[in-house]
Amino acid sequence: MNGDTVFHQLFEAESSTYTYLIADKKTSEAALIDPVLETVDRDLKLVAELGVKLKYVLDTHIHADHITGAGEIRKRLGVQTGVSEDAEVECVDIPLHDGQELMLGHKKIRVIATPGHTNTCLSFSFENMIFTGDALLIRGCGRTDFQQGSSDKLFNSVRNILFKLPEDTIVCPGHDYKGLTSSTIGAEKKYNSRLNLSIDLDAFKKIMSELNLANPKKIHEAVPANMACGKKS
Amino acid sequence: MNGDTVFHQLFEAESSTYTYLIADKKTSEAALIDPVLETVDRDLKLVAELGVKLKYVLDTHIHADHITGAGEIRKRLGVQTGVSEDAEVECVDIPLHDGQELMLGHKKIRVIATPGHTNTCLSFSFENMIFTGDALLIRGCGRTDFQQGSSDKLFNSVRNILFKLPEDTIVCPGHDYKGLTSSTIGAEKKYNSRLNLSIDLDAFKKIMSELNLANPKKIHEAVPANMACGKKS
Repeated sequence: MNGDTVFHQLFEAESSTYTYLIADKKTSEAALIDPVLETVDRDLKLVAELGVKLKYVLDTHIHADHITGAGEIRKRLGVQTGVSEDAEVECVDIPLHDGQELMLGHKKIRVIATPGHTNTCLSFSFENMIFTGDALLIRGCGRTDFQQGSSDKLFNSVRNILFKLPEDTIVCPGHDYKGLTSSTIGAEKKYNSRLNLSIDLDAFKKIMSELNLANPKKIHEAVPANMACGKKS
Repeated sequence: MNGDTVFHQLFEAESSTYTYLIADKKTSEAALIDPVLETVDRDLKLVAELGVKLKYVLDTHIHADHITGAGEIRKRLGVQTGVSEDAEVECVDIPLHDGQELMLGHKKIRVIATPGHTNTCLSFSFENMIFTGDALLIRGCGRTDFQQGSSDKLFNSVRNILFKLPEDTIVCPGHDYKGLTSSTIGAEKKYNSRLNLSIDLDAFKKIMSELNLANPKKIHEAVPANMACGKKS
């Protein structure tokens, strides 16, 4: 990040989710990435205190482990929400697609499709940072066994798209479960336990097929709610 | 932070402690600030992966809520530990004092005495960041009711020392309990609930005298261990 941007990482402990507030200092235009419904008050208090003008609330994907705060924030502040157009979320304001650019003051948020954890995962590039959602995590990656997940697609997204970014790009993930807060593309190319450059597609698919993870506790509540911009049914 | 420094914030969930890894990219010389004994393995794995050379392990103060990882890290890597000279920790390598400068490559870590939470609290200034330990927290501050704490001293440390730093200085606290990760001196001058500029010394002392907090669970284990560089008795 640079002196002319605002950057705040926020942590929601129950789902170990990172929410990000980014802004252009000159114009004060701001975006929230992946807010969690339970921490909307905290996030909007920070927005107010910093005196930034929230323009967008962006979700990297349809989350299965928490309910997005996007709809609630839109209700309170009238901002625009964004999620992948392929998710076919009817209530969203800006259906996002690969290559799209959103203006934040004079700066750009670039939308990069990185499917695989789900079929509609996006990453957001802003300055020297990449917000990777659950595509690329620190030393790991999102699972690929529900929501049209695909290990083939995730391998391609990380290795052929995210890993082509400059090595010193700061990786801002959607979660971390070990208390790490950020990484770099260079470090992940070397040390990601599932996707470092020494691991080929077949090995990755084997790793992913053997995870045997339980479903997220909230999946049956969170996915339908997130398809409705965070509105509980 | 700038392009020629390494910066990683690390979180220990049980005590909500932030540990920081900072390094000078050119020489790879690095320092760890406030490591926690339970997360030493994680922290040293990151040090190894980043290929930085750990030179110092610094504690902002004698913690009451967790045991420092300083002694364990020194045992493994032979680095130098630092804590306030006033703490009279016999096993420390570098007794630190106000105004001292530690070289990290060609960069400097500046030691600033900020007593009040305890009588030996230090803050560390590095580039555009200030590591404040428990003196200044995000929208709050450390308690002043044990370890020779003093609300008078803490008020002076925050208002007359830390708040004199440039407004865009990034505040990296020793803890946060709400999922906030950083702040700025400018934001704290406005919005710190106990120490913002509209609050005078008498009002601050009243706030602090009415907190009625229980002692930290680990105080009787942590303080003696930290006086021995993290060695449990």
